[in-house]
Amino acid sequence: MAANKHGWALSWLLGHNAGMAWQHTLRQSTSGRGTYELTAEVNEIVRRSGVETGLCHLFVQHTSASLIICENADPTVRRDLERFMARLAPDGDGIYDHTQEGPDDMPAHVRAILTKMDLTVPVANGQCALGTWQGLYLYEHRVQPHHRRIVVTVTA
Amino acid sequence: MAANKHGWALSWLLGHNAGMAWQHTLRQSTSGRGTYELTAEVNEIVRRSGVETGLCHLFVQHTSASLIICENADPTVRRDLERFMARLAPDGDGIYDHTQEGPDDMPAHVRAILTKMDLTVPVANGQCALGTWQGLYLYEHRVQPHHRRIVVTVTA
Amino acid sequence: MAANKHGWALSWLLGHNAGMAWQHTLRQSTSGRGTYELTAEVNEIVRRSGVETGLCHLFVQHTSASLIICENADPTVRRDLERFMARLAPDGDGIYDHTQEGPDDMPAHVRAILTKMDLTVPVANGQCALGTWQGLYLYEHRVQPHHRRIVVTVTA
Repeated sequence: MAANKHGWALSWLLGHNAGMAWQHTLRQSTSGRGTYELTAEVNEIVRRSGVETGLCHLFVQHTSASLIICENADPTVRRDLERFMARLAPDGDGIYDHTQEGPDDMPAHVRAILTKMDLTVPVANGQCALGTWQGLYLYEHRVQPHHRRIVVTVTA
Repeated sequence: MAANKHGWALSWLLGHNAGMAWQHTLRQSTSGRGTYELTAEVNEIVRRSGVETGLCHLFVQHTSASLIICENADPTVRRDLERFMARLAPDGDGIYDHTQEGPDDMPAHVRAILTKMDLTVPVANGQCALGTWQGLYLYEHRVQPHHRRIVVTVTA
Repeated sequence: MAANKHGWALSWLLGHNAGMAWQHTLRQSTSGRGTYELTAEVNEIVRRSGVETGLCHLFVQHTSASLIICENADPTVRRDLERFMARLAPDGDGIYDHTQEGPDDMPAHVRAILTKMDLTVPVANGQCALGTWQGLYLYEHRVQPHHRRIVVTVTA
């Protein structure tokens, strides 16, 4: 962890330290299935943490939404990704028994497991060290709107 | 990392520090293909670490088992997931050359790569900050029983 | 983090600390689609960090290459994996609109999202705590050769 200008080193030694991991929960409302960019919000959390070099971990506290890194230049990439996922794990698939929450529920669980609920990116120079074309996205897999919580933890 | 009550800050300065990451290896025997919940065992490791805010990382040291987060309320979700995976990467698939370890071996490698061998969850208030319906599972992809090792590392 | 032999504890207290996360960017040239082992290079970075117990995080700064753990003994496993991925996300797939960068571009994005751009392994005894048959690989999904950057961060 980087020693910052606010006396953490000292406060840690004195036992007042609240922890050297910074954590903040983002809340994202979705309008249904699709991707929602979080890059700016996550970088703002990293900036506030004061961490220069370390890790930024994202975690969605749900089992039918996930977190991905995707090309951020051409929106058709994310639409094409959705077409691929819809073909891979189609709604209303006859192989499922867990259908009481709707034809998109079990496919949403499968999609979330394949695209993962956790994501870690490096922090360098006080921000997420993403490549030029990389963006951070919440991927909502349910058809209906939902409120999603993403826990962001910055460590060094 | 959180300064705890046991003098780590001091021991670190004195050079006796054994590391500020806590690590423990879980051992799980499986009875063959399927999911095995680890949530309680992992939370116990986090509790013992004394970390209040940070990260908990799980890693399975094998290439035919993986770690997933799945809905923990209705067991049919995990059975449906297994049906999906069995259709996606069927045993005895004719495209594979690596068949000497059995018809389920190469599919197990593919399943493990798609569902991943590593998993990181946030730690908040001294435990894994999982959503209400999230459970941590070892996913055994081989048909026969195996002994699996999961390295759990808690950092702050 | 492990206190090392070079006076970090002191330099941190004095405010000269450059951070307790060690970070290094690996550069890998690829000759096109396929897997490229990084295990030795990553272990060398961990060794130089001096971290005994912690985490080693890998991140590829691109959206058409990924990072996987795969069986490292029989090279046919990785060839079979490639056959599986080529069938799952075939080049020239008619469902895509994003085709101006070539028939392998959108499939490369899909493959990278399914196999992930980030990967974290535990560090124990000063090296990556991999299982006997686990190797770390960059997975290039584009057909043409590329230069890829992988940010490696070691924390404790």
